[in-house]
Amino acid sequence: MRAGTVTPPFLAALRGQPTSRRPIWIMRQAGRYLPEYRAVREKRTFSELCQTPELASEVTLQPIRRFGFDAAILFSDILVPLEPMGAPFELTDGGPRLLHTVRSEDDVDALRIVDSREHLAFVGDTIRTLREELGTTPLIGFAGAPFTLAAYLLEGGGSKDFVRLKSMLYGRPDLLRRLLAKLTDQIADFLRMQVSAGVDAVQLFDTWAGILTPADYEILVLPGLRRIFESLEGTGVPRVLFMKGGAPYLRQMVGSGADALGLDWTFDLASALAETGSLPVQGNLDPTVLYGSRDEIRRRTREICRAGDLAPGHVFNLGHGILPTTPIEAVETLVETVRGHRPEVEA
Amino acid sequence: MRAGTVTPPFLAALRGQPTSRRPIWIMRQAGRYLPEYRAVREKRTFSELCQTPELASEVTLQPIRRFGFDAAILFSDILVPLEPMGAPFELTDGGPRLLHTVRSEDDVDALRIVDSREHLAFVGDTIRTLREELGTTPLIGFAGAPFTLAAYLLEGGGSKDFVRLKSMLYGRPDLLRRLLAKLTDQIADFLRMQVSAGVDAVQLFDTWAGILTPADYEILVLPGLRRIFESLEGTGVPRVLFMKGGAPYLRQMVGSGADALGLDWTFDLASALAETGSLPVQGNLDPTVLYGSRDEIRRRTREICRAGDLAPGHVFNLGHGILPTTPIEAVETLVETVRGHRPEVEA
Repeated sequence: MRAGTVTPPFLAALRGQPTSRRPIWIMRQAGRYLPEYRAVREKRTFSELCQTPELASEVTLQPIRRFGFDAAILFSDILVPLEPMGAPFELTDGGPRLLHTVRSEDDVDALRIVDSREHLAFVGDTIRTLREELGTTPLIGFAGAPFTLAAYLLEGGGSKDFVRLKSMLYGRPDLLRRLLAKLTDQIADFLRMQVSAGVDAVQLFDTWAGILTPADYEILVLPGLRRIFESLEGTGVPRVLFMKGGAPYLRQMVGSGADALGLDWTFDLASALAETGSLPVQGNLDPTVLYGSRDEIRRRTREICRAGDLAPGHVFNLGHGILPTTPIEAVETLVETVRGHRPEVEA
Repeated sequence: MRAGTVTPPFLAALRGQPTSRRPIWIMRQAGRYLPEYRAVREKRTFSELCQTPELASEVTLQPIRRFGFDAAILFSDILVPLEPMGAPFELTDGGPRLLHTVRSEDDVDALRIVDSREHLAFVGDTIRTLREELGTTPLIGFAGAPFTLAAYLLEGGGSKDFVRLKSMLYGRPDLLRRLLAKLTDQIADFLRMQVSAGVDAVQLFDTWAGILTPADYEILVLPGLRRIFESLEGTGVPRVLFMKGGAPYLRQMVGSGADALGLDWTFDLASALAETGSLPVQGNLDPTVLYGSRDEIRRRTREICRAGDLAPGHVFNLGHGILPTTPIEAVETLVETVRGHRPEVEA
């Protein structure tokens, strides 16, 4: 927040303050559904985009220019910090693929915790470039949550049953904890670096934690999330936790130390508010609604806006990343509808 | 239930009656983790196994012989009724694949509702063969729930984002309803045939309904489940609903008309009982616990048994199908532990 200016709606909503309008951004807003993104991406690898500040800034800005979203999110990938830790990967069309998977105690011990300022300097450079270009639009920094990164390290990519991860959880929980502790330290350092470089909010993505029992989520995942969020205490930067499939763990998410929670569409937003209490929420339109009729997009968007009226703060978002084949016109309808929403005033 | 005999623990638990021991069976208990199954399967296709009553009976009996499970489940596949409806498929190692996907109104209208006695006679034959061989061990019949079958018909197989299904839901909900109505009629007929042929309980598998918002689950899925369960009213056969990722929809599952609910491991069993109320429950060990240490298998199995002590009835099961690479010894440890469980008696 810059002194003497009005707080942007996105940041106001995340702080539970009144907003002039319902803020909206969408997960993966800088991505393949945009022709201008595909044009930049065509000639480069995904890694080149992430690691070249001018390119990463350019694609970050594209959806802001086109739709006027209320926040930009740094163009990057949750796996980016793994490379300097000693776990290189490639991003294929079938998803990320680690070049070596973590199997043994030695593999865990070999992972380094690095100074993000030095080893992830391109992220800091991108943030500084963006901060200049974005004007008053807030910039979101992000990282993958430790459990999700551990899942990639152990499985080598996405997985259906996560047998390697689960075998460690149920056979060598001490080793899994050691891996998680390292990742927690790295992610905390990485996010602090992003805040120093100028992001206005941070979001932790916990894509895979929904494969755990609620008890394991509480014992294994929650302490790491708390440590990361605590390490950002005092920066004034709102901390958002997003978890895919988070519905069974809402009570735990509320206790994570996040300032706001990102919810997917398996939550009924109105009912979830009973548990989220004083925490602002972000979400939660099913991304595939954007394949529906214009009327249906409007109807469902309004429904979520109305539920959000009752939250201490509501940032409109999709419940997960926008899909690459989503029609642009659908996003236009979505944005128009959110912009047109006026909270009902009680008589 | 045969007159003059003691009710088997599995059926007693599903009826909320006291049991002499904690009944256990596991989803996909007749399957690739068993060497004797692999031996039979080696020379035949999966479809041959399903459609040949002697073979289907043989593999159904294998886990009963080896582990003495408290219930057998008919060896078959949830897609089996689709073939006579006019939607042939093949079962590949990567999962099922429909030969033609349903795209248009004409495709939906072309699906036939068939008399299961005639067109799925091999299922009835398998059940009759098994009823003779099983003695007092109850036999479970099953079917895929309409929504899950619709998902396969529309997507042509499994899917990550279910864009085709969702496009129909959000663009042509009337057509999706028409498809679901047909599937509902077919599944009701199919399960009634299974009951006439001699199954002692039925289970509906709703693998994919967890991709819906709770409101859509209620509007779209629940009426079909109710109709199917109602059509079995008066048969005396317990009706179980299992849903993968059911935690966000527990309230709706409770209102489905099922006599008992199968829960996956994203439920904390003890907490779920507050909502399942008078309904017996089945579950809910994470199948990958069976890759863990012997102590961990015991510890987690006991924990679920203890939570189950407080339910009106508890059938021990995994929270999803057992995985093909599961070690046999792990299943032995599991069964021993459940057999060794004694409910704590209050002082």
